[in-house]
Amino acid sequence: MLNILFADRIENWPLYQAPLQAALAEAGVTARLCLPDDLPPSEVDYIVYSPRGPVQDFTAYTRTRAVLSLWAGVERVVGNATLTQPLCRMVDEGLSRGMVEWVVGHAMRYHLDVDFFQTHQDGVWRQAGHVPPLATERAITILGIGALGAACATTLAQLGFKVTGWSRTPKTVAGVTCLHGADGLRETLSTAEILVTILPNTPETTNLLNTETLALLPKGAVILNPGRGNLIDDDALLAALETGQVGAATLDVFKTEPLPPEHPYWAHPKVTVTPHIAAETRPSSAARVIAENIRRSEEGAPLLHLVDRTRGY
Amino acid sequence: MLNILFADRIENWPLYQAPLQAALAEAGVTARLCLPDDLPPSEVDYIVYSPRGPVQDFTAYTRTRAVLSLWAGVERVVGNATLTQPLCRMVDEGLSRGMVEWVVGHAMRYHLDVDFFQTHQDGVWRQAGHVPPLATERAITILGIGALGAACATTLAQLGFKVTGWSRTPKTVAGVTCLHGADGLRETLSTAEILVTILPNTPETTNLLNTETLALLPKGAVILNPGRGNLIDDDALLAALETGQVGAATLDVFKTEPLPPEHPYWAHPKVTVTPHIAAETRPSSAARVIAENIRRSEEGAPLLHLVDRTRGY
Repeated sequence: MLNILFADRIENWPLYQAPLQAALAEAGVTARLCLPDDLPPSEVDYIVYSPRGPVQDFTAYTRTRAVLSLWAGVERVVGNATLTQPLCRMVDEGLSRGMVEWVVGHAMRYHLDVDFFQTHQDGVWRQAGHVPPLATERAITILGIGALGAACATTLAQLGFKVTGWSRTPKTVAGVTCLHGADGLRETLSTAEILVTILPNTPETTNLLNTETLALLPKGAVILNPGRGNLIDDDALLAALETGQVGAATLDVFKTEPLPPEHPYWAHPKVTVTPHIAAETRPSSAARVIAENIRRSEEGAPLLHLVDRTRGY
Repeated sequence: MLNILFADRIENWPLYQAPLQAALAEAGVTARLCLPDDLPPSEVDYIVYSPRGPVQDFTAYTRTRAVLSLWAGVERVVGNATLTQPLCRMVDEGLSRGMVEWVVGHAMRYHLDVDFFQTHQDGVWRQAGHVPPLATERAITILGIGALGAACATTLAQLGFKVTGWSRTPKTVAGVTCLHGADGLRETLSTAEILVTILPNTPETTNLLNTETLALLPKGAVILNPGRGNLIDDDALLAALETGQVGAATLDVFKTEPLPPEHPYWAHPKVTVTPHIAAETRPSSAARVIAENIRRSEEGAPLLHLVDRTRGY
């Protein structure tokens, strides 16, 4: 019977307990999930770890065979001098699927004008003029077609949408019109009824959506930002919402997170704030990654996503 | 030269005339499109039909070789005693795509708990406990896996959902768990976190969702009805919403349409009414279906989507 220590924030224990137990059972691993008070460090075989959890000093974990991070980024632990055990990063396919689902869900919400019907539950049967166009008649642009953006673009194209993807350098995605560079950006913005931003945070992408670029959109375009908060000039977006140039926005990421309570996005009738949930590590898929690594370790197979301490990731 | 009578509402004639002419030409059918005043019933070869059109009595249409419905649902004509001619339902790609989009949009909306975030735009950053599960962990049941239901089931399965389809008789849909019969219904209801009803309107399906069957659902299940209004015992659904047994419902079809302004669904905080917009027939694709059936009939080939009068659909 292995002892597996759950060393994330205690608030996350209810989220992870059942998925970890299920994933361990599915992987054929017989183990007991423990919290720090349940057993001494010297009896812990594996640590499920996050930097926000209770374990900072790994010295006493003398029989621990691997530290399995719940976080993709390990910069806060990789330099810990007490960590002599193997360390594995989290590589969660749930993060990419979660991004696709958030984008599809909010794109469909605007495509079908769901908000209109939700705010008109007043006894008036408004069919004429409110049958939505088919997806084949709806243009969606994805700014950023790396792994996450391409996954979103492909899924939207499979649902029938006219999808254009834009990137700094030329790329190819099946079923998607791909544009690039400064000219490509102007062209793709000019047709985007729904604009999705999934670019990385770099100096070049900061405030990419600004007064000038927002003015290139068709009037009333909708913006979905599950990417990075730096991409949007917030004052420019608020001004464009005021004039109707931008019809609505659903934003999952912000320059400051949590988004401060006094930020005008919260109260804006055309803005929906979601609290950085589009691409979060999911307990069930993360649990499968951890269980798989414990199974491998017990069978003497190489660990997945093992961190190279000299590179730092 | 065939005579084809357009027997839908006259307001729809401008929408259908050109698409029908184009589709007939494309199918190689030489025909004259007529309105009721253009010729006597005894000279009509085919009727393009809707229940809202001028033809209620088919007795005088002695040489009519088929009645080709513009509507998917034929419950308002199938019991017409004067109808002795073959009757075909509409199975329209546009209608089917519209249905798929409505179902995907509202399924994603509940899957992502969009309503929760929309009603909590209050400055509080609620991430913990509000990251939605992935589609792979979400069970959706489709009651009715004919052409429309199967299209919805397939698309939801491609998006990653755990999809179960139920039908009266055994069916097979790739990627979808298919159950049938009374036992299958109990089994599929017991797991349905989101339940989509796309059954035809027949005596057997009337009030299929009633106090007893709603009680079989997991507590808090969501109901989407883009199918037919007869499927739901409205009093039973309202009672189940009151107790929380059903968490929410989005309904596109009703026993009486337009849904009367005083109906409790309109004001119910857990119910979203949409005005029968999920599956509207699109003229161009519907015209191709009709032209193809006329071509088949003239060549002695079996008609597509022929209604079985004993089953009622």
